[in-house]
Amino acid sequence: MSRDATLPPTRAAVLDEIVRAAAAAFGEVGYRTATLDAIAERAGLSKVTLYRYVSSKEDLLSLVVERTIATFRTGLREIVEERRPAEETLRRIVRFQVRLLAENLAFLTVFFAEESGLPAPMAAQAARAKREYDRTIERVVREGIEAGRLRPLPPMLVVFGLLGMCNWLHKWYRPQGALSPEQIADVFVDLLERGYLADRPGASRDGDALTRIDKRLGRLEAAMAAPRRRRTRRS
Amino acid sequence: MSRDATLPPTRAAVLDEIVRAAAAAFGEVGYRTATLDAIAERAGLSKVTLYRYVSSKEDLLSLVVERTIATFRTGLREIVEERRPAEETLRRIVRFQVRLLAENLAFLTVFFAEESGLPAPMAAQAARAKREYDRTIERVVREGIEAGRLRPLPPMLVVFGLLGMCNWLHKWYRPQGALSPEQIADVFVDLLERGYLADRPGASRDGDALTRIDKRLGRLEAAMAAPRRRRTRRS
Repeated sequence: MSRDATLPPTRAAVLDEIVRAAAAAFGEVGYRTATLDAIAERAGLSKVTLYRYVSSKEDLLSLVVERTIATFRTGLREIVEERRPAEETLRRIVRFQVRLLAENLAFLTVFFAEESGLPAPMAAQAARAKREYDRTIERVVREGIEAGRLRPLPPMLVVFGLLGMCNWLHKWYRPQGALSPEQIADVFVDLLERGYLADRPGASRDGDALTRIDKRLGRLEAAMAAPRRRRTRRS
Repeated sequence: MSRDATLPPTRAAVLDEIVRAAAAAFGEVGYRTATLDAIAERAGLSKVTLYRYVSSKEDLLSLVVERTIATFRTGLREIVEERRPAEETLRRIVRFQVRLLAENLAFLTVFFAEESGLPAPMAAQAARAKREYDRTIERVVREGIEAGRLRPLPPMLVVFGLLGMCNWLHKWYRPQGALSPEQIADVFVDLLERGYLADRPGASRDGDALTRIDKRLGRLEAAMAAPRRRRTRRS
């Protein structure tokens, strides 16, 4: 995380390019299969130059993971600090999460696939960052439930459900697909907020109440109309 | 897939044990880090015996993937062939998916993490099987929408949303956790069917009905009050 800060701008830009090339290579052929030669070629560098920036493939994996974590963390913090109502914050989180996945497919594929094979200190850092991420969203859900804006479901399961729905993109999303990340996020928000069941009157408690009210109103309206009708009949 | 069929029962049982040990080892320390020695030890076999069953670590990975695919496929087929209403079929799919993930955590972690690094023929087979799986669930959703039981959301996104929610378990589920797979599945079903928003009048179709009822009540009240008012004024 500190490596970028200590580099002069051009070197930082080159390292950035190398990390992008590494993520793309890892994402495409898997971390195991990818070679430093192929990564250097992708970045348009000689292997000698590459070695001036990173010492090994594992080093590159660590950089990919660090950057992924930093991007997630910064984005989430910005959303949560706006302190909007829970459902609006969650809406923004879903849109952010889907956009991030779609735009950084290679990074995220590597991040999710290679977690278990990370060197120990990096694995611990990644686990900590993920826990913190989950808990931040959990607080949003918990506050939403307390404010009566969200249904009282187990908050952590809402978080895992939401994140699972979004993060699964790395398994199926193709940039050339029919739907844009915004359209996908809209459907997910809709699905998470309202579910997939068709509204069927009588199926919900409100539905039952409405049906009863409708009948009572009908009887009232009939009673109001009755005298007039009786009068009509009499005349 | 055919390997088991050709083995006598005891040999099939040993192979089964080896594949389970391999899945556990791959799942715990990652495919890259796991060694055949460690797998043999887990299975309680010598490395020599292990080699009578499998020729390499890659061979073992293929077996893990094959078994995972077979388990998913058989279970889904059984559910869909019962031809229940769409929402009931989806409920069963969510429960099946969550249970399968929870019970085969090691297998699924390997399956989802190692996909990109599979040898080409196995990768193609896995991709085909997954596509078929997704499409089978998509048909259920599509029929549910056509029957008016599900809301008209893009069917494939409902499928990916549902599967993402369930499959993400392999990233967070711990067998010793507070909630059983059944409890988790119940919450996911509830969330997928009805969403997380608290019912708020005015926000839904029920809200529209309430607005209409309000107007009818207003008209009734006006009709009730009118003659009396006229009488009051006259007196």
